[in-house]
Amino acid sequence: MTHHPEQKGFTVWFTGLSGSGKSTLAEMLYHELQARNMRVELLDGDIVRQNLSKGLGFSKEDRDTNIRRIGFVANLLTRNGVIALTCAISPYREVRDECRALIGEFVEVYTYATVEEIAAHRDPKGLYRKAMAGEIKGFTGIDDPYEAPESPELVVDTMTQTPLESLQTILDRLRDLGYLEDSRMLAEGPKVHSGMTDLRLTETGHVAEGG
Amino acid sequence: MTHHPEQKGFTVWFTGLSGSGKSTLAEMLYHELQARNMRVELLDGDIVRQNLSKGLGFSKEDRDTNIRRIGFVANLLTRNGVIALTCAISPYREVRDECRALIGEFVEVYTYATVEEIAAHRDPKGLYRKAMAGEIKGFTGIDDPYEAPESPELVVDTMTQTPLESLQTILDRLRDLGYLEDSRMLAEGPKVHSGMTDLRLTETGHVAEGG
Repeated sequence: MTHHPEQKGFTVWFTGLSGSGKSTLAEMLYHELQARNMRVELLDGDIVRQNLSKGLGFSKEDRDTNIRRIGFVANLLTRNGVIALTCAISPYREVRDECRALIGEFVEVYTYATVEEIAAHRDPKGLYRKAMAGEIKGFTGIDDPYEAPESPELVVDTMTQTPLESLQTILDRLRDLGYLEDSRMLAEGPKVHSGMTDLRLTETGHVAEGG
Repeated sequence: MTHHPEQKGFTVWFTGLSGSGKSTLAEMLYHELQARNMRVELLDGDIVRQNLSKGLGFSKEDRDTNIRRIGFVANLLTRNGVIALTCAISPYREVRDECRALIGEFVEVYTYATVEEIAAHRDPKGLYRKAMAGEIKGFTGIDDPYEAPESPELVVDTMTQTPLESLQTILDRLRDLGYLEDSRMLAEGPKVHSGMTDLRLTETGHVAEGG
């Protein structure tokens, strides 16, 4: 058996509007942590909806249930020395804080972008436009609430930063919090396009959802 | 940082009728693995119903969904070097085999006891009697099917063995499969009554559910 230093588990909890860059940054971070030979799981919103929450809708109650399930699983991983990366919208502050209290080793990263920015530049499926036209109901940020975190460990402004710049700020923050020894980027090759999420970078270097 | 040998993850999947001894044996095994400083999680049926499957019922479809969710979480743990112990009835062979295929490192333990034995000696809440009288519907083993495993890694006959004897056969099997170095019992103090499950031993030394 080989010997490895015992890894401390933690959860990086991405929260933000659809299209704000959660999944792309989570996936880039996933590759960075893998490049460090760390045990890491990416609990992508779609994977979780498929495997843990099929049948749940998008009412507040169902969204909260979905988020609690993600928190339950992230906690199981974290307390066993695994890094969990979550990237559900998680629009409600109260249930995010519940997950924080449960998990303890919790790094909340708020991916910030305005509805206007996302609708104008990162809406290839036209979901924001449809929601703004009233054709889709219960869309977070349009006719359904998004409660921004009051004191997240990190805010990344994905309107002014490129994804690589945002990734670097996340790595730096994790180093400052004592979770990483070194914040230099190590992963080689494409940082996204892995097939783990359906996210892409636009030609402007911004994060685009869908494709 | 301390250094530990890298632990190989696996899942011990208990299956069997309600009252056949799944949770008691899983909990006894949990304490044995903890006494070895191994990372281990007990995914008790009730805990999972509460945290991952609230709202699901006991139709075949809902039972299968519940079991798939347990398999999903057990797999996340197993592939990260954690031992997952599951103890849901998991009455259907097909979905158990689906979990086996997903997880790979899978030790199926069939806790065997007849309906007659359980109803006569291990039914403090009278559930079997009510089900046999038709007062409870959809009860596994009475009017709902239980499909016994065809080639489990281990069958423990909880009618002829005491729980400690069954535990020893499980530890021996795990050693033979290469998952444990030593099958001697290490845990001290009470082996059950931890509050993690609601199971008890009867005065005859048999496993009793409820209390």
